[in-house]
Amino acid sequence: MASKNRYDVTEWHAGNPHQDIGAVINSIIADIKARQTDPDKGEGGKPGAVIYIPPGDYHLATQVIIDISYLRIEGSGHGFTSSSIRFNTPADELKTWHEVWPGGSRILVDICADAAGDEAAGAAFHVRRNGNPRISSVEFANFCIDGLHFTGGGAHDTEPENSYVNGKTGIHVASANDSLRMTGMGLIYLEHGVTVYDADALAIEGNFIAECGSCIELRGMGQASRIANNLIGAGYNGHSIYAENHGGLLVSANNVFPRGASSVYFSGVVRSSITGNRIHSFYPGMLIFADNCSENLVSSNHFFRDREPWAPMTAHDNGLDDLFGLLHINGSNNSLIANHISVSIDTRYIKPNDARPVIIRVVSGKGNYIASNHIVATTESSEPDDAPNSACFSTQVGALLSTDNLNTLEVTTVAVEKESFQNIILDSGSDDQVVIDRSVNAFRATPLPGA
Amino acid sequence: MASKNRYDVTEWHAGNPHQDIGAVINSIIADIKARQTDPDKGEGGKPGAVIYIPPGDYHLATQVIIDISYLRIEGSGHGFTSSSIRFNTPADELKTWHEVWPGGSRILVDICADAAGDEAAGAAFHVRRNGNPRISSVEFANFCIDGLHFTGGGAHDTEPENSYVNGKTGIHVASANDSLRMTGMGLIYLEHGVTVYDADALAIEGNFIAECGSCIELRGMGQASRIANNLIGAGYNGHSIYAENHGGLLVSANNVFPRGASSVYFSGVVRSSITGNRIHSFYPGMLIFADNCSENLVSSNHFFRDREPWAPMTAHDNGLDDLFGLLHINGSNNSLIANHISVSIDTRYIKPNDARPVIIRVVSGKGNYIASNHIVATTESSEPDDAPNSACFSTQVGALLSTDNLNTLEVTTVAVEKESFQNIILDSGSDDQVVIDRSVNAFRATPLPGA
Amino acid sequence: MASKNRYDVTEWHAGNPHQDIGAVINSIIADIKARQTDPDKGEGGKPGAVIYIPPGDYHLATQVIIDISYLRIEGSGHGFTSSSIRFNTPADELKTWHEVWPGGSRILVDICADAAGDEAAGAAFHVRRNGNPRISSVEFANFCIDGLHFTGGGAHDTEPENSYVNGKTGIHVASANDSLRMTGMGLIYLEHGVTVYDADALAIEGNFIAECGSCIELRGMGQASRIANNLIGAGYNGHSIYAENHGGLLVSANNVFPRGASSVYFSGVVRSSITGNRIHSFYPGMLIFADNCSENLVSSNHFFRDREPWAPMTAHDNGLDDLFGLLHINGSNNSLIANHISVSIDTRYIKPNDARPVIIRVVSGKGNYIASNHIVATTESSEPDDAPNSACFSTQVGALLSTDNLNTLEVTTVAVEKESFQNIILDSGSDDQVVIDRSVNAFRATPLPGA
Repeated sequence: MASKNRYDVTEWHAGNPHQDIGAVINSIIADIKARQTDPDKGEGGKPGAVIYIPPGDYHLATQVIIDISYLRIEGSGHGFTSSSIRFNTPADELKTWHEVWPGGSRILVDICADAAGDEAAGAAFHVRRNGNPRISSVEFANFCIDGLHFTGGGAHDTEPENSYVNGKTGIHVASANDSLRMTGMGLIYLEHGVTVYDADALAIEGNFIAECGSCIELRGMGQASRIANNLIGAGYNGHSIYAENHGGLLVSANNVFPRGASSVYFSGVVRSSITGNRIHSFYPGMLIFADNCSENLVSSNHFFRDREPWAPMTAHDNGLDDLFGLLHINGSNNSLIANHISVSIDTRYIKPNDARPVIIRVVSGKGNYIASNHIVATTESSEPDDAPNSACFSTQVGALLSTDNLNTLEVTTVAVEKESFQNIILDSGSDDQVVIDRSVNAFRATPLPGA
Repeated sequence: MASKNRYDVTEWHAGNPHQDIGAVINSIIADIKARQTDPDKGEGGKPGAVIYIPPGDYHLATQVIIDISYLRIEGSGHGFTSSSIRFNTPADELKTWHEVWPGGSRILVDICADAAGDEAAGAAFHVRRNGNPRISSVEFANFCIDGLHFTGGGAHDTEPENSYVNGKTGIHVASANDSLRMTGMGLIYLEHGVTVYDADALAIEGNFIAECGSCIELRGMGQASRIANNLIGAGYNGHSIYAENHGGLLVSANNVFPRGASSVYFSGVVRSSITGNRIHSFYPGMLIFADNCSENLVSSNHFFRDREPWAPMTAHDNGLDDLFGLLHINGSNNSLIANHISVSIDTRYIKPNDARPVIIRVVSGKGNYIASNHIVATTESSEPDDAPNSACFSTQVGALLSTDNLNTLEVTTVAVEKESFQNIILDSGSDDQVVIDRSVNAFRATPLPGA
Repeated sequence: MASKNRYDVTEWHAGNPHQDIGAVINSIIADIKARQTDPDKGEGGKPGAVIYIPPGDYHLATQVIIDISYLRIEGSGHGFTSSSIRFNTPADELKTWHEVWPGGSRILVDICADAAGDEAAGAAFHVRRNGNPRISSVEFANFCIDGLHFTGGGAHDTEPENSYVNGKTGIHVASANDSLRMTGMGLIYLEHGVTVYDADALAIEGNFIAECGSCIELRGMGQASRIANNLIGAGYNGHSIYAENHGGLLVSANNVFPRGASSVYFSGVVRSSITGNRIHSFYPGMLIFADNCSENLVSSNHFFRDREPWAPMTAHDNGLDDLFGLLHINGSNNSLIANHISVSIDTRYIKPNDARPVIIRVVSGKGNYIASNHIVATTESSEPDDAPNSACFSTQVGALLSTDNLNTLEVTTVAVEKESFQNIILDSGSDDQVVIDRSVNAFRATPLPGA
C-alpha cells in the first residue's frame, strides 16, 4: 500500500536524471496524470505528488512543464556559492579551489530562450495551464537552479560572465495561479530567477536568489502575495524585486543586497507594503514607484547606498544620476514612515558633477505622507579593491563598516516636484534639506540640533 | 539498526490510511508509546517520532489523540485550492474543471463536533495530556486538513457551503503546552482551523489557513508565541487571528485577507505586538482590542478596508457599523505607530446612512499613544461582480487596484471617547478629523497641505 | 542509480549513532569526500550530500568536523522542552513526569571545551576550512542539540544546573563562510548555542534556541545576514543575540524572551536593522550598542522589562543598575523609531535606591535620531513565586498579564550624555522625562495630555 505519490528522480525507471532531469520529471508528471484521472472520486482524486531531488548535479536539457496542481518538487540543499567571484578569479588560482560550482540538489540549466527571445522557452520549470480552476499549490523547495554561465554583453564583451544575460529563467509561471509556494530555493546565474504572472496568494519565502539578472518578477496582475525573508541580489541591469499591478503584496524582512538596477521596482502596485527590509544598493533609483503606485506603505526599512567597491563591477551602473532620487515615487497616498536611509559616496562619483543628491523624490501624484524618516548622508573615500576572489568579502565588509572619518554630504532629503501636491512631509529633513512648494504641500522640518 | 522512529502512514501494518488515517496514526502512536517507556534511560528515552503522510487523499473517521511530546506529523504539500469558488460555480461549469478538491498530503475530516457542541470532539487532531511536564514540541508540517463542506446556516439556508459552519476543527490543543510548531500547513473549510489553549512559545508560521470560520485561536492564556508569515483569511462570522490573555505574543508579517468578522481580535492581551502585517477586511472592527488590552504595539501594518466585491458573499457582513471603529481599542498604554490605513467604500454602503466613518476609535483606558499614522479614505463606485468562479480573481484584483477616480471620503481618523483619557494623538489626522477632548488628552494635528 | 548522496545515520555501516553520532557523521563525510573528488567534472562534481537523523537519542562523543560545502544535516524534530524547570523540580515530583529530557532528533553532547578553554573544542559541530572558496551552503535543519547539564558556578555553587556554564557549543563556525543556513533547530543547555565567525549571507531562521548561556553569536566580521523568526532566550550571563563588526545584518521578528544579560548586544555593528522583534528582559542593558555602532535602525520593536518572577533565578542578574539605560547606545547616526518600551518594576528593586531609571541612554557619538517611541513605566508589586515546576508557566504569564493596578513610575525616557551631541529626540518623552543639552541637540517633547 506504500504510496506511489512520492518519487525520487534517481529511482525513476525512465531517463537519466543526471543527463536530463527535465525529461525525467516530465515522465513522472505524465505518470501522475495517468494515475490520477478522476477529479471527483470519494471527495478527492487528484492530490498530486512530491518529486524528490537528492543532492547531486542534474543537467536539464528538456524544459519541465507543470500543468497539475499540488505538485511539490523538493531537494535537500539550496547549494549557493558565488559564481561571480569564481568567474573573476584567475584560472591558476582556481586550481587550488576546493570546488568551483554551486551544489546541493542542483539543476544545471542547459536550455535558454529561443531565437524569438521568448523568455518562457528558456525556463527550467514552466508552469502553465488553461481552463479552470487556476493551477494551485505547486511547491518548489530546497533545491538549486543554476544557469551556469552568463553569455551576453555582445560580441565585443570581454567579460560575458559579468553580463547577467543568458536567456535562462529558473521558474516561469505563465498562467493565473493560486497558493503557489517557493521556499528554501537557491537560484544562481539566471537572467530571470522567478517570473510569475497573475499570482494570487503566492509565497516566495526564505530563498537565496542572487547573481541573477532579475531575481523575483511578479507580472501581469495579482493580489495577496508574500515576498519575505529572502536573501536577494540582482544584476545592474535587472531588479531584485519587481511587481506590476499587484494589490496587497507584502514585501517583508528581505535582506536585499546589491546589485539590482532597482532593488525594488513597483509599477501600478497599490495597497501593498514594503516593511522591515534591509536594502543595499550601489545606484540611485534603488526603490522606484512607477505608473501611479498608490496607497502603499514603506516603513521600518533600512536603505543603504554606497558605490560599488569591487573592481570587476565598477564599470557598470544603472545609468541613473543622483538627481533621480534614491527613492523615486510616482503615485498618490503612499506612506513612507520610520525608515532609515544612509548614503555614503565620494563626491567625485556624484552625477552630474557637483549635484546635490536627492534621496526621496516625489514626481507625481498627491497625498503622499512622508514622516519620521532619518536620512544620513556622508562622503566616503574608500578605494575600489581589485582583488577578484574571496577578498571580495573583506572588501565589501570593509566598505560597509567604514563609518569613521566620514564627512557630511549635503543632500536634498526630500524633493517634491511641482507636478505633485497635497503631500505631507514631517520630520524627514531640515528646512534646508527639503525642496517643496509649501503653498500646496504640508511640511514640518526636522528640528536642527543646537538651533 | 535503521530507525523505528520514522513512520509512513501508507506503510503501517494496521488499518487503511485512505479510509481512516486517524485510526492508523493512533495505532502508530500506541506503537511509539509501547516502545518508548523509560523516561530516563541513558539521559534520554522518549525522543518521539515522525509520522509521514505522502501526497494523497486520506479520510479521517477517527480523531487522532496526541499525548506524547516530540511527535512530528509531516506531509509533502499544503494543497490549498479555493473550495469557496468551487462551491459557487455552476455544476455544468465544474464538469470541465481539472480538479475540484484540495490536494497535497490531504486529510479529509469526516467527523464533527458532538451533539453537545464540544468543539474538541470535532477536531481532526486533538492534543491533550494531563500531568507534568506540559506536552512539548509537537510539530505539524506541510500537509492539508480539509473540512470538505460547510453545513450550517440553518434549515432555510440555501447556501450552506457559504456558512463557514460545520463543527470541524483542524488542530485542537486542549492542555497547557510548550514549544509547539505548525509550519507550512494548509487548512481549509474548517469551522476552526487551529485552536490552542494555554500556549507557551508556540510558533504558527508559514501556513495557509483560509476559507475557515476562524483561522487561529489562542485561548485560555499564554506567552511568548509567534503567529508569523502566514496567509490567512477567515469567514464573516469568525476571526482570522484571535488571542485572549496572552503576553508577549508576536503577530508579524502575516498577509491577512478577507473575510474575518475581525482580522485580529485581542481580548485581555498585553505587551504584545502586531507588526509588519498586511491586513485586508470588508467590515468595520477589523482590529479589535477588547477587555483591557494594554501596552501592545501596533506598527508598520497596512490596513485596507473596502466592500465585499464578490456577489456570492455580499449578503454577509459582521453586523458592525462604521461608527464602531475600523480599529477599536479598549485598554491602556497601547501604541499605534507608523501604520497605513486605507478605506475605500461607496457612500451608499456606509452604515448608518450619512455617518462619518471612524477609523481608530479609543473607547476605554488611558495613555494610548497614536502617532504617525496615515489614513487614506476614499469613495469607490465599483459594482459587485456576480461571476462566481475564477472571475473572482480578476474581480478581487480589479477592486484592489482601482485607485483612479477616487474621491475623498470624509472620516474621523481618530475618535477618543470620553471614557478614555491621557491619550496622546500625534500626526494621525487634522484638526477636523480627530474627535477628542483636548483638556484630558494630548493632540497634535497632522499639518494640512497648503494651509 | 539511486542516489548515494542521501545518508541516514541509523543505516550507515560504520559506528553506532546512538553511542557516538559524531563518529558516524565524520565517517559519512569521509565517504562523501572519497566519492566527490573532482571539482570540475561536467560543470559540477562536488554537490555535497544530506545526512538524515531520524528522531532518537544520539550521544555525541566525537566532534563533527565539517569542511565540505553543500552538506545538509537534517532531522525530524527540534525537540525542545524546558530543562531549566526540570532541574528545579524536586526528584520526587519528577517520578511522575511523562518525560524528563528533550527529544526529537536529538544530539546529546558529551564533549566540552578543552582544558585551555578553547570553545571550538567543545562544539558538537565544528565547521572550518582553509583556502578558497569560503565554505558555502552548509545547512542545519530540524534537529535538537542538547548540552544535557550545566556544570559551572564553581565548587560552592549548589545549583550548577542554573549556571549556564558547561563548556559546550552547539554549532561553531570558525572560518569565513557564505550562505550558511540554520532553520528549525532546537538548541538547549549549551553554554554557546551557535557561534559563527566571518559570516556572509548567513540565515539563522525559525529556530528555538533557549536555556543556553548565549544563543547566537556572530563574531569576527560579516555582512548581509539574517537572524529572523526565532524563539530565543539566553542566560543571565550571556547574550540572546550578539554581533560584532557586522554590516547589513537584519535582526527581524524574533521573539526574544528572558533571560540574557543583554537580549541584543551589538559591538561595532553598522548599517544594520533590529525591526519588528518582541524582546523581554529582566535587566537593564537589554539592548546595548557598544564600540561605535552607527547608522543602525531600531524600529517597530516591543521592549518589555520586568523583574525575574521565578524564585530559582531571582538571585541572579547582569550586575547593571537602572541608570545604565535599558537601551544603551554608543555610536552615531542610529535611528530609534516607532518602538514601544514598557518597564514594570517594584520600586524596592530599583538600583541604586531611589534612582530614576533611564530607558534610552545615549552615551557617545552624534547624530542619533530618536523619534516616535512610546515609553510606559509602571511599578508592579507582584511577588516572586517559588513554585519550581510547571507553575513557572502561570507565574510567568501572570506576571506578564498583570497590568491592572499599576502605578506610574517616574523615569528618564531619554538621557543624552554630554559626550554625545547633534542628536535629534522627537516625541519620545515629555520635557520632564528627557535629560539633554538642548544647546547641542534637538528636542521636541511629546505633548502632555491635558497640558
